[in-house]
Amino acid sequence: MKPPSIIALLSGPDQPGLVARVAGWIYERHGNIIHADQHRDSEAEVFFQRVEWVPAGDIKEEQAAFRELAERELGMSARVMLSSDQPKVAIMVSKIEHCFHDIILRFRSGELPGELVAVVSNHETLAAATAAYGLPFYHIPVTRANKAEAEAEQVKILRETGAELVIMARYMQVLSESFLKNVGCPVINIHHSFLPAFAGGKPYHQAYERGVKLIGATAHYATADLDEGPIIAQDVARVTHRHGPPDLVRRGRDLEKTVFAQAVRWHLENRILVYHNKTVVFD
Amino acid sequence: MKPPSIIALLSGPDQPGLVARVAGWIYERHGNIIHADQHRDSEAEVFFQRVEWVPAGDIKEEQAAFRELAERELGMSARVMLSSDQPKVAIMVSKIEHCFHDIILRFRSGELPGELVAVVSNHETLAAATAAYGLPFYHIPVTRANKAEAEAEQVKILRETGAELVIMARYMQVLSESFLKNVGCPVINIHHSFLPAFAGGKPYHQAYERGVKLIGATAHYATADLDEGPIIAQDVARVTHRHGPPDLVRRGRDLEKTVFAQAVRWHLENRILVYHNKTVVFD
Amino acid sequence: MKPPSIIALLSGPDQPGLVARVAGWIYERHGNIIHADQHRDSEAEVFFQRVEWVPAGDIKEEQAAFRELAERELGMSARVMLSSDQPKVAIMVSKIEHCFHDIILRFRSGELPGELVAVVSNHETLAAATAAYGLPFYHIPVTRANKAEAEAEQVKILRETGAELVIMARYMQVLSESFLKNVGCPVINIHHSFLPAFAGGKPYHQAYERGVKLIGATAHYATADLDEGPIIAQDVARVTHRHGPPDLVRRGRDLEKTVFAQAVRWHLENRILVYHNKTVVFD
Amino acid sequence: MKPPSIIALLSGPDQPGLVARVAGWIYERHGNIIHADQHRDSEAEVFFQRVEWVPAGDIKEEQAAFRELAERELGMSARVMLSSDQPKVAIMVSKIEHCFHDIILRFRSGELPGELVAVVSNHETLAAATAAYGLPFYHIPVTRANKAEAEAEQVKILRETGAELVIMARYMQVLSESFLKNVGCPVINIHHSFLPAFAGGKPYHQAYERGVKLIGATAHYATADLDEGPIIAQDVARVTHRHGPPDLVRRGRDLEKTVFAQAVRWHLENRILVYHNKTVVFD
Repeated sequence: MKPPSIIALLSGPDQPGLVARVAGWIYERHGNIIHADQHRDSEAEVFFQRVEWVPAGDIKEEQAAFRELAERELGMSARVMLSSDQPKVAIMVSKIEHCFHDIILRFRSGELPGELVAVVSNHETLAAATAAYGLPFYHIPVTRANKAEAEAEQVKILRETGAELVIMARYMQVLSESFLKNVGCPVINIHHSFLPAFAGGKPYHQAYERGVKLIGATAHYATADLDEGPIIAQDVARVTHRHGPPDLVRRGRDLEKTVFAQAVRWHLENRILVYHNKTVVFD
Repeated sequence: MKPPSIIALLSGPDQPGLVARVAGWIYERHGNIIHADQHRDSEAEVFFQRVEWVPAGDIKEEQAAFRELAERELGMSARVMLSSDQPKVAIMVSKIEHCFHDIILRFRSGELPGELVAVVSNHETLAAATAAYGLPFYHIPVTRANKAEAEAEQVKILRETGAELVIMARYMQVLSESFLKNVGCPVINIHHSFLPAFAGGKPYHQAYERGVKLIGATAHYATADLDEGPIIAQDVARVTHRHGPPDLVRRGRDLEKTVFAQAVRWHLENRILVYHNKTVVFD
Repeated sequence: MKPPSIIALLSGPDQPGLVARVAGWIYERHGNIIHADQHRDSEAEVFFQRVEWVPAGDIKEEQAAFRELAERELGMSARVMLSSDQPKVAIMVSKIEHCFHDIILRFRSGELPGELVAVVSNHETLAAATAAYGLPFYHIPVTRANKAEAEAEQVKILRETGAELVIMARYMQVLSESFLKNVGCPVINIHHSFLPAFAGGKPYHQAYERGVKLIGATAHYATADLDEGPIIAQDVARVTHRHGPPDLVRRGRDLEKTVFAQAVRWHLENRILVYHNKTVVFD
Repeated sequence: MKPPSIIALLSGPDQPGLVARVAGWIYERHGNIIHADQHRDSEAEVFFQRVEWVPAGDIKEEQAAFRELAERELGMSARVMLSSDQPKVAIMVSKIEHCFHDIILRFRSGELPGELVAVVSNHETLAAATAAYGLPFYHIPVTRANKAEAEAEQVKILRETGAELVIMARYMQVLSESFLKNVGCPVINIHHSFLPAFAGGKPYHQAYERGVKLIGATAHYATADLDEGPIIAQDVARVTHRHGPPDLVRRGRDLEKTVFAQAVRWHLENRILVYHNKTVVFD
């Protein structure tokens, strides 16, 4: 059994001695560093670090003290969590169910450190399946006419459940800027193409039309610019002229499941930093 | 030692019994089919076939007779070559040399069935290296001002050498519609991105800016629409936030070399059919 | 909606005119070939063919007539099925559940053409989950002492359910020669290594010890020689020195799921021929 | 232009504060850390670190001072090089030439930081090609009878050239324990299979016989146990029943070239630590 650890993600303007000061601080307080990784974007002059350690003292006090160090003394942005944290996660989904089942099964098996708190859908299709998993299901139909109200209701529910992460397991509606501003936590989306190729609707059909020899899937943080958010994970699979759109859809499902799960896991393990619409992933 | 065979590539409107008639014709003349593959685009109602066989009679006569059958009786487009054919191939290149060396070495080792006849470049950089390989080198500087004349000279040389295929081993100039119309043979280009993402100039820099997690290379037939031609082969490699543009360039070189070589090999082995700006590759 | 088709898999000693005779027979009876692929192992002098067509006449009569042609006139082994067939499939599983859930969900979503008829397990762990999927669960404990009897009971159940394919979704017991002889249908197993490397128990630990940079999964037909059966599908994933055995187990799960599903799909779509302990897969 | 940096590779028994002490030492002397990565094998209780920094003082003095710190004060094994170092590299090769050309072209293009000093071969085949690259060629025939003497002569030449790394670009002889002990530097070999599968001779034929669906290549440090040395890099490519041994050989060449080059680059960039017959690669 692993002892509980503190995981810190830092970023900010580069300055001499950051690695030394962070490592020195932990050492002085008799912490034991388990993992440390850093990155320096020398053009942008930004420094990024992920450090994970087992503290000697009270873990909550050390967590608070480190945040103090990082933000006050080092002037860095800091996200500091405990390895025992189980962030609350809400799922948004429409009718397509492979990512939905796959991600829920991963949470249930303990592969993903988080607690599922809600399934929000614009269709009733997955109500029974959600119930079978013992999760609350919120059906909020979305039409052209009611979109603003529907989103307001979604936000209300998501905030009430205390969701710290929203994951779109093939939710087929574009989220408005307002939704993203108000939801109060990051949103991870899985797009069924190798972005930036084939953004927007029906990417497998677009891929078929263009005659590409590889199809892909991309997990990214949703932003107000559709399919333009910071990319977290991508993968591809080989296709040939024999594969029509239904084959691409079928093959793509496996990509979507694994890429989506990887992005969610990285996020929940506090491995991702975003800057300049890109991600640093300390894997 | 394999006996010489005939390789036919057919395409045309779908009609009942095509497979039977082709196979029956070969069987009646005591040919021995080595490889046969077909594809039917049921939406476009087009039929494609590659068939390779060792004929019983005189190989040249059988080749001509089959062409007759395919074009006259079956009403198909047909490209019929012999496995012993060594099509003439010309290379166009600028200064970047990894694809240049790699493809020439593959021809020299017998990996690619063809005969290199010329290297055409807009720079003198690779003149000595070309001479060391025992190949004729044609230096035709291209500027904004002289582009039309320079292309006319390129076309003249390529036609004089009898090139049946032109391969652009990182030739950094856009070819005009006029060049492509007049050169009289297919042109294969290697683009250093996973098309349709990052078409145009500096794709590795574009990829870095967008923060993708995979970079790619694409071999395609050059058409008048830059980087929009039928895709032949593609591959990708994984990158992370640690890889700056120079790393992407370095990693991309390996992709470019293998993808380019694969496309050239498939073309020379008569495995590719083009339709609707896509390719059927009978691998 | 696709019209129902006949799918035939043929194999046998190579002889001139096989392709022509098969295609000609279908053409004469006004069948419409949708897919045809063949392979010739020139060393072993064996010919393999998969042909799929929409018959003009009564589909059952055409199916029978083709079997007659293939076996009597051509002297080939033939497996002739209809695209509408839904073969009965039984799952064997122990406690590890990712392949179990994943494959059942694929059957339920219609991705796999077959009908699940039973789950047989040596543990009770997955009894409730099986019930939730509406499938019959057979718990047959296996010990060193009762292995022969337990296997006899497994065989009895599997035969009673009419299983035409048994799939081992991480069933952690070695099957005896007697089981395989008596079960009366093919058995597909998923092994969690890149065979032939790391056959036998605890392959991820073996991989960790050896320090390989890629881990794999292999689906194969079970034979009396443990992990030595004909390989159907394989895939790998990249690992580094950072990945301990638990990480390899986690990453391997995704490989196991997709490789297993692909092998099962290929089998159910009548795409696999076995000879010389190898497979021909007409994908 | 990057300023010259110091690159240190440390390994040794794990102890508290190692990261802090190394980073603190560099910080106090006003060095600027460019890259730092570490790994802890918690089972083996070994700590590994790669740190690269631009020193403020005289680079040679700082290099020496750091070695002092690492070895004396921290009790670690240390390899400390400068980014400007160009280690001397000797190639051993037989007749097969794709890895030979590919690796030499990479050195010539500046992709690999090192200086080629010799080509040693048991055949004369590549003498002219070596001369064309401007490199000294040493032909030392090896037979069953003269193996010990031949190896002694190889060792003598390699030591005289001052080789700091020997790379076997498809050298088809097994090196004796005595050779490896006396050569005085690491030896990197490329094996044409996905080790540990298909060690020993004719791996592509072994792969064909076994019917695997992926073939591979493995770069490793040569040890007295044939094909059992620490693995540095591996890659695979997909094959089907259509690929006979010559196809596997052809496809494998591309794998061999890239895997070999990657291993050599990682070694020359001081990224590899060996322990327990495994490698830690700080990529």
